[in-house]
Amino acid sequence: MTLMRDEIFEQPGILERSLNEGLSVAHEVCRRATSFDPNFVFIAARGSSDNAATYARYLLESYTSLPVSLAAPSLFTLYKRPPDLKKAWVIGISQSGQTPDIVEVLSEGRKQGAFTLALTNDPLSPLAKEAHVVMKLGTGTKHSIAATKTYTAELAMMALLVAELADSNGLRVGLQRLPSAVQQALSLEEKVKELTSRESYKQAAHSLVLGRGYNFPTALEIALKLKEVAHVFASPYSAADFLHGPFTIVDKSLPALLVGANGPAIPGLLELAQNLRELGVEIISIGDDPGLLRFATPAGAALPLDLKGLPEALSPIVCVVPGQLLALHLAQARGLDPDHTPERNKVL
Amino acid sequence: MTLMRDEIFEQPGILERSLNEGLSVAHEVCRRATSFDPNFVFIAARGSSDNAATYARYLLESYTSLPVSLAAPSLFTLYKRPPDLKKAWVIGISQSGQTPDIVEVLSEGRKQGAFTLALTNDPLSPLAKEAHVVMKLGTGTKHSIAATKTYTAELAMMALLVAELADSNGLRVGLQRLPSAVQQALSLEEKVKELTSRESYKQAAHSLVLGRGYNFPTALEIALKLKEVAHVFASPYSAADFLHGPFTIVDKSLPALLVGANGPAIPGLLELAQNLRELGVEIISIGDDPGLLRFATPAGAALPLDLKGLPEALSPIVCVVPGQLLALHLAQARGLDPDHTPERNKVL
Repeated sequence: MTLMRDEIFEQPGILERSLNEGLSVAHEVCRRATSFDPNFVFIAARGSSDNAATYARYLLESYTSLPVSLAAPSLFTLYKRPPDLKKAWVIGISQSGQTPDIVEVLSEGRKQGAFTLALTNDPLSPLAKEAHVVMKLGTGTKHSIAATKTYTAELAMMALLVAELADSNGLRVGLQRLPSAVQQALSLEEKVKELTSRESYKQAAHSLVLGRGYNFPTALEIALKLKEVAHVFASPYSAADFLHGPFTIVDKSLPALLVGANGPAIPGLLELAQNLRELGVEIISIGDDPGLLRFATPAGAALPLDLKGLPEALSPIVCVVPGQLLALHLAQARGLDPDHTPERNKVL
Repeated sequence: MTLMRDEIFEQPGILERSLNEGLSVAHEVCRRATSFDPNFVFIAARGSSDNAATYARYLLESYTSLPVSLAAPSLFTLYKRPPDLKKAWVIGISQSGQTPDIVEVLSEGRKQGAFTLALTNDPLSPLAKEAHVVMKLGTGTKHSIAATKTYTAELAMMALLVAELADSNGLRVGLQRLPSAVQQALSLEEKVKELTSRESYKQAAHSLVLGRGYNFPTALEIALKLKEVAHVFASPYSAADFLHGPFTIVDKSLPALLVGANGPAIPGLLELAQNLRELGVEIISIGDDPGLLRFATPAGAALPLDLKGLPEALSPIVCVVPGQLLALHLAQARGLDPDHTPERNKVL
């Protein structure tokens, strides 16, 4: 057993609890943000939380029409030339609330007169201190090195908030379905384990992870897990950007993971899958689209999800889960300990 | 001789000409943008132009304080749920002006009442038709598959514009220095060529490209060139994000390229270089910082630039050039034709 696996399996329970407990804070944020009447939203985060910020961007722009900018923290920390945030709603996302440059962005925003919100596990953290309102992630302490439960909790908190901001019943109803959908995704563990015993996966030095639209951040996050935990040099791409250049690096030894939920992103993914198949590339498919799942080679590499009753905008909270399991079991198949910090990290 | 090399060497002449010819349009854009009084800037682009958009983001936020958001085109094209752009200044960057989803973003912005600007080579293109003002890149036809001269022209046009918007004499004076600084960068060709004859480079399957702040987009663009042209699986990182996870994938067989100009980004790069050296990683250094250049292993992998008189904010227009040369000559050392489209691209 590993800490990473424990935390992956805690997710349905955490989602259930934090979606209930978060609702009153979501209402408060909603009330404050609405009376502040921001021109745009400005989000700062690093690592996995930055992938959560990318998700928040798609969700906020599509459901509330508020334009979103993802911060370039170096303009605050290194160059001391931050943009004008007076009319911004500034959001900082950090599990620990300790990341110094994210704290700096919130602090500058608050100084300029912005409305500031922190998503964090620690309401006493430096990040929380710079926030007008704190949304607690409620995942309990993170012991694993790789972020899993904190990532899905960040996504769920943002979705809870956007459901209220946009007064969307589709999102509200879908949120109730999340814990059981994540539970079903976890039931794929045996299948994932079997897959990672394949010699071609164990040997894979690099890999492509492709998604689009709402599930582009899922591709980013799965690629990060594959790198961090399984030490696979995984490159994430939006299925659209992939045609601008990177397609030239595809070769047969490079397995590709395609992730997407039923919706407008699927046709582009299918076209890409067809081209990858013609090149003889092995494909792992994650999602609920029968067409996409059929492209999986071998057939065991189809990881089908039950996304019934979920708007596509909520699917990333489920679609990432088979990717977490894949990183975990691929690490173990490659003789790596997912809970071990390589010595070199301590140098830094 | 290759088309790619021809176009790389056209850059000083193009910069000289287009900086002169672009000034009156820059004044016009400046006048229109100022009277429109935007809340924020929204930029849409793909591929190399998207890296130019990332550069524009750093430049605009730091010199004009205008917050910048880089578009997620799928919200316009796939989901038909674009954000509110009424008070935005929307910029589309595309050499050909043909990229359909970039055209769509500009078109939606214009429909909503935004002020729209196109950076393109073709003033009769669909993108130009959606723009209130067109800034012509003036690079002449692009024949090479890999974008080089169009990338630096896009950066220079943005810098010309920001110099006027911010009324910055530092930028204006620096811009005059650009053609000769790029000329000096081109003089590194023999050194780069010698470097790419090394067996370890010829064999390298993947590589890291690291930069920070203004030169983060340079890292993105050099990594894209290495992938497209030399088929090296190059991963770009902000030196800051690199500590969140990806550092675990470093091993000795993975050469790293570090790029940066004298300024606040250097200390972080030096710390990273020190750690990479301790792990035995070969380093290529691009820039004008003696400390960073000393980390190059072998010594021939130091590619020194003359950036005197250039504000750091303009250095990316020069720093990318040795990266273009590296991609070109590494491709040739690996037996690839930089001007050849692999058959598989035609499928798409």
